[in-house]
Amino acid sequence: MGDRSMVEQAWDALEKTIIFFKGKPVGTVAALDPDIPALNYDQCFIRDFVSSALLFLIKGRPDIVRNFLEETLKLQPKTGQLECLKPSRGLMPASFKIASIIGGEYLKPDFGDHAIGRVAPADACLWWIILLRAYVISTDDRALAHRSDFQEGIRLILELCLVTRFDMYPMVLVPDGASMIDRRMGLYGHPLDIQSLFYAALRASLELLIPNQENQMIIHAVNNRLDPLLKQLQENYWIDPDRLNVIYRFQVEEYGEEALNQFNIYSDSIPFYRLAKWLPEAGGYLAGNLGPSQLDCRFFAIGNLMAIISSLANEYQSHRILNLIELRWNDLVGHMPMKLCYPALEDADWRTVTGADPKNRPWSYHNGGSWPVLLWMLTVAARKMNRAELAHHAIAIAERRLLHDHWPEYYDGPDGRLIGKEARKFQTWTIAGYLLAKELLANPHHLNLITFDTEWC
Amino acid sequence: MGDRSMVEQAWDALEKTIIFFKGKPVGTVAALDPDIPALNYDQCFIRDFVSSALLFLIKGRPDIVRNFLEETLKLQPKTGQLECLKPSRGLMPASFKIASIIGGEYLKPDFGDHAIGRVAPADACLWWIILLRAYVISTDDRALAHRSDFQEGIRLILELCLVTRFDMYPMVLVPDGASMIDRRMGLYGHPLDIQSLFYAALRASLELLIPNQENQMIIHAVNNRLDPLLKQLQENYWIDPDRLNVIYRFQVEEYGEEALNQFNIYSDSIPFYRLAKWLPEAGGYLAGNLGPSQLDCRFFAIGNLMAIISSLANEYQSHRILNLIELRWNDLVGHMPMKLCYPALEDADWRTVTGADPKNRPWSYHNGGSWPVLLWMLTVAARKMNRAELAHHAIAIAERRLLHDHWPEYYDGPDGRLIGKEARKFQTWTIAGYLLAKELLANPHHLNLITFDTEWC
Repeated sequence: MGDRSMVEQAWDALEKTIIFFKGKPVGTVAALDPDIPALNYDQCFIRDFVSSALLFLIKGRPDIVRNFLEETLKLQPKTGQLECLKPSRGLMPASFKIASIIGGEYLKPDFGDHAIGRVAPADACLWWIILLRAYVISTDDRALAHRSDFQEGIRLILELCLVTRFDMYPMVLVPDGASMIDRRMGLYGHPLDIQSLFYAALRASLELLIPNQENQMIIHAVNNRLDPLLKQLQENYWIDPDRLNVIYRFQVEEYGEEALNQFNIYSDSIPFYRLAKWLPEAGGYLAGNLGPSQLDCRFFAIGNLMAIISSLANEYQSHRILNLIELRWNDLVGHMPMKLCYPALEDADWRTVTGADPKNRPWSYHNGGSWPVLLWMLTVAARKMNRAELAHHAIAIAERRLLHDHWPEYYDGPDGRLIGKEARKFQTWTIAGYLLAKELLANPHHLNLITFDTEWC
Repeated sequence: MGDRSMVEQAWDALEKTIIFFKGKPVGTVAALDPDIPALNYDQCFIRDFVSSALLFLIKGRPDIVRNFLEETLKLQPKTGQLECLKPSRGLMPASFKIASIIGGEYLKPDFGDHAIGRVAPADACLWWIILLRAYVISTDDRALAHRSDFQEGIRLILELCLVTRFDMYPMVLVPDGASMIDRRMGLYGHPLDIQSLFYAALRASLELLIPNQENQMIIHAVNNRLDPLLKQLQENYWIDPDRLNVIYRFQVEEYGEEALNQFNIYSDSIPFYRLAKWLPEAGGYLAGNLGPSQLDCRFFAIGNLMAIISSLANEYQSHRILNLIELRWNDLVGHMPMKLCYPALEDADWRTVTGADPKNRPWSYHNGGSWPVLLWMLTVAARKMNRAELAHHAIAIAERRLLHDHWPEYYDGPDGRLIGKEARKFQTWTIAGYLLAKELLANPHHLNLITFDTEWC
């Protein structure tokens, strides 16, 4: 089966996932697996749709993206900041579905109130801003973003994220399971995956907000946040052999503003022996989470790839992250690009950190599983840093399996060789992610839809 | 040495801890141990001072409490909700100290920016409101609370706590280590200790806020929050033998509004075998934390005692909590009232959950250590439920050790027999907690300073 045929078949599968609201295309369902009950896979997830949306923009079909942005904006609560049983002002739903009422249809959002475990979709509003920017760059339709309802929508999202709370960190505080990893896996507090999206959304909003009186305060707040956020992530999340040695020799229990070990990390909590063996001399990456006495040394793909894409990681760090992926290819890519998180939590850690989640058993699903959707982020990150060969290689590996396996949601096993135990097939973002990766590699001038330059002011 | 002499000596020690600002008493330092460097124990902690303050109120010395409330109110930031490097509007500092400048002195607050691990003091603002209510009840000086700066202070604290964020829970979301347990110990997200104080502070603020135009919105928001919060805590945090059986047989992976296992708790994460043996048929308690796939089954004393005191636990539940303490006396009280948290995290759990914190080794400090300050909360809870014999017994046990051991901060060991490894001696709240417990038992009409009735509207 030739490559062209694979692309064609992917497109056929993708077209089928488009959903229509009042006759207009507004999104794509999460999966169209004929063999498993849909559960909530018949909904359009904001985070899932981003892959399809970027592809539609590139292929000259911005209408579906525009409709999606307009309709989801209407789902965003505009009032009720102090109501506790309604979704907060500014929040975007994790997903929506088309529901019928007498005389018509309406969009029914899920803000985590229906979701398994009642998890909060903190990433959805960040992706929404990032996608709006991509739409504007692609279509040059600034008028949409400048419409007062869109300006308000952006402002409300930023207010939701920027209102500081009890801590004094520049990172945004989120509850457990608030991103693509929407099950308990140690991602409470200040997980990297969210911080990278947060940074990209802040950068995007500066491009989108009209510098008028109404937006003045929020633009000021965004500008105030970007530098400390960048500094915190580049310095305190960063792990490379040099930094590892600094952490290894940290003093503890330091009191006062001058403390070097600000987060009071205990050496014994860091797997130095394993890390020292695993981390190549030329490699580095951003840690998965940071908090009091916590430096989560797992590698998370979204946070690291989006850090490269958004220029949250500087050029040196971006190359080191790609070096790590190249030099630890078997671990991070293996038979399917690529691991969402590496390594897996095992044994007692799995029980304690995941709450004994059987879907997240070691080397399955989020916990060390491999997610083909990441192919497009890997492609963008590699191509942005002029290392397209990494993307070519990853795509070639994915092509050996994806069509044959009917586009699974994820793969399991330390090397990604098993189709995910509970994976849906014909998972939309697997299909779209593959097509998007191919497209971006063939036409890299489209990278600008999603990448950010180093300079922002 | 007679009992009277012990009380006298306690008073002598307590008087020495009072600090003066511009000639007026404003608080008490955390400890006056002559043998260990002060570090930050020379500061006045808001949460620590509450024990002394209640005692001063009862003994007819409200001036120091009034000064404390006035001075700390001035430390609360009134602007800058969108500034990330300054403490948030409404936040109260964890502690303050008196610093000198040319020509005078000033109060220097610590909002977590100096603290070990940079932990956020989310409980301080809640304690502040609770203490203000006690002051008003004790002195009948409503004028202070009705002053516009105090009304504003209360409003700002409530706004800080009530602005919902990404999740749709009625509980307040806090970062790791945001309470008396200010080191990493699994208390991120929605820990009980904070929720109990949150409930008490909401109740207190309804008594303190003038129902005028300016306060209308926030009073409405508080009223909206109380019921769902109560329901969530009483239903989903509650553990007794019946409830344990329900949890044991939970279905998992339920999607939709009708899910019984809303938080998708996996049976394998709950130590049923140990709990079924340990939990008496007549006992029950509120779990330590709740979140996606998480029900923390440890017993936390502050959360459970303050739930009785604030009527967050209903009458049935309050008695069941006291039954548990009575029937598991050796575990929860032992040789020193009482355990801050039971049982200790051990082995891999200790490493994973605390980040290998050597100060929180199993059965030490917060992690299974015993804290004499809890004596007053136990006394209030027991006396409120007409079970003063529990308090008498606990005080008698404490009296065997406290003076002889020079009022240590905490005790270690599964039965509380060891003086805490790094405990300060002459710890102020140990001294004040003992005196307060004695006082409240002798004059139970003072219980109303801190207790709340069941009815609130």
